[in-house]
Amino acid sequence: MSANTLTVELGERSYPIVIGAGLLSQGFDLTDHLAGDSCLIVTNETVAPLYLGDVRACLGGTRVSHIELPDGESFKNLATVESIIDELVAKKSARDTTVIALGGGVVGDIAGFAAACYMRGVAFIQVPTTLLAQVDSSVGGKTGVNHERGKNLIGAFHQPRIVLIDIDTLATLPDREFRAGLAEIIKYGAIVDADFFAWLENNMLGLLARDGQLLAHAIRRSCELKAQLVAEDERESGRRALLNFGHTFGHAIENTMGYGEWLHGEAVAAGMIMAAATSGIASSEQARLKALIELAGLPGGPPRLGANRLRAAMELDKKVAGSRLRFVLLRSLGDAFVTADYSDEALGAALKSADA
Amino acid sequence: MSANTLTVELGERSYPIVIGAGLLSQGFDLTDHLAGDSCLIVTNETVAPLYLGDVRACLGGTRVSHIELPDGESFKNLATVESIIDELVAKKSARDTTVIALGGGVVGDIAGFAAACYMRGVAFIQVPTTLLAQVDSSVGGKTGVNHERGKNLIGAFHQPRIVLIDIDTLATLPDREFRAGLAEIIKYGAIVDADFFAWLENNMLGLLARDGQLLAHAIRRSCELKAQLVAEDERESGRRALLNFGHTFGHAIENTMGYGEWLHGEAVAAGMIMAAATSGIASSEQARLKALIELAGLPGGPPRLGANRLRAAMELDKKVAGSRLRFVLLRSLGDAFVTADYSDEALGAALKSADA
Repeated sequence: MSANTLTVELGERSYPIVIGAGLLSQGFDLTDHLAGDSCLIVTNETVAPLYLGDVRACLGGTRVSHIELPDGESFKNLATVESIIDELVAKKSARDTTVIALGGGVVGDIAGFAAACYMRGVAFIQVPTTLLAQVDSSVGGKTGVNHERGKNLIGAFHQPRIVLIDIDTLATLPDREFRAGLAEIIKYGAIVDADFFAWLENNMLGLLARDGQLLAHAIRRSCELKAQLVAEDERESGRRALLNFGHTFGHAIENTMGYGEWLHGEAVAAGMIMAAATSGIASSEQARLKALIELAGLPGGPPRLGANRLRAAMELDKKVAGSRLRFVLLRSLGDAFVTADYSDEALGAALKSADA
Repeated sequence: MSANTLTVELGERSYPIVIGAGLLSQGFDLTDHLAGDSCLIVTNETVAPLYLGDVRACLGGTRVSHIELPDGESFKNLATVESIIDELVAKKSARDTTVIALGGGVVGDIAGFAAACYMRGVAFIQVPTTLLAQVDSSVGGKTGVNHERGKNLIGAFHQPRIVLIDIDTLATLPDREFRAGLAEIIKYGAIVDADFFAWLENNMLGLLARDGQLLAHAIRRSCELKAQLVAEDERESGRRALLNFGHTFGHAIENTMGYGEWLHGEAVAAGMIMAAATSGIASSEQARLKALIELAGLPGGPPRLGANRLRAAMELDKKVAGSRLRFVLLRSLGDAFVTADYSDEALGAALKSADA
């Protein structure tokens, strides 16, 4: 196995992100990262047959139990968190237990929140198996579940002890989910790294062919950029909010369509295009963003939900502070900022792209 | 209104505890402590008719809504937390909203946990109206709810922005609840302040008569001692655990009887006597502790639940780390420590006091 390690610098809560191939099949040793001698693996019915055995083999002589959740965003709710806590209680898990999330972003968010709440916080490990989880949701400590009226309205900040990213798991990822992960990778380039954006333009076809070396680079660079933003601003009072580029629009799309119609990454892709339009950056740059998103096989615009419905859905979005919506906008590709100072006309035009 | 202010020193999470008479009736200004211009008061059906109007008057021109929970520990569960979150969502509450807990420990624990989870954490204010909440649960940031198989198994650390303690609210507190609060006050003396313990021995009758000056002193000293322990060790990895004196036994009593049979303070009172017996301190000191507890009208020993049932209930208690139970024990009155090194014989004898 070959692996690269980054560190998310958060003082006493710092932790490594290990990225490589063959980590699971060759039994990467996770035991040093456990808080005690017991753990609960939280996974789902899709991922368990593929990787649960491998992860158990990474845990040596630890007392391991596991719980298989049903697969899908529709189960990302408090009831599922409760089922995990019930399992922890049933196993008489103590404060030194460790919860291990094995799966995509939904599994990681749910398991992380259960770990945050059980006995006011137990240790947590992320083993993300989707591209989206590997480059985004497994890093940075955001955990939580959806409320029927909004995404991620219930949650906690709870950092993992290690994020173990085995690129080999991407071999089993369906194409549509793979492309959804590419949306978040494109996002990093768009918000803070114009060179990486250009690299993506040059290498998107290789990434789509799932070239191992290119994937390793794209994942590593994405994690580096996210780790920097998280280290600067763990609780998202400042620069970390840049990671929400495209997300206010994207969440509105997801809320309006109903969770699960579009994948999160698909909604964010369309949201980024709407945010770029709201930004009023050069039309050549808007065109580059749209071209890269479409090259990745992602939606080049919102579904025809109607501008008014999208606007209404944005009102409850978490980036609302006071009465005027705040957005992450671009000064140019690779240079994002948070603002409530934008042209209402440009916003209106961006929303109109959702009209029939 | 006359008031005293202490500070819980937690760096950027530091906050004041304001203690006084007439704070609510004279409209103490809470507006400076709000995160934004909206808030949700969480209270219960018993407390609302008494103090909800006063607290609203402390909030000036803020947009205030409120939710009344049913009264009782049996409602301290995730479903109630969800009902508070539903209300926050229904009011379109943003990240800058503030949750205000008005009531006893149950209200504070539930409301605090809802504040900790909503949008991964919104501002929180404690207005405790029972003696137990004023001297214990409102200070220190522990929030959470019960699982059907154990107390406080689901929760978070979430510090308030201010704790507002109006001693006048004790005038409406039923005797039995008042005495339950005295148990936690006695605890502070027993674990870290022999002088305060002696002061309590000399002034217990005055406290029982609810003398305002004596109450103010007892509450202030209790909050000071708790604030010190919390400042040293916010997340209870060390000295803060001393606050659990009597609680391992007490929780076992509560679990075995079913929540709500005995009040928490009553169970802790009996638990302190069992812990003192397990400590093997001088029988004269054990006798002083028992005498003070009984003088306060609290149980001088556990109910007749049987030693074996209590022992079984302790196994899931949160102070379990590995296989041997850890307890907070006494070297002498006013000098507690955490240990797994005690005489099994002494523990057995303490448990036997619960045999029929």
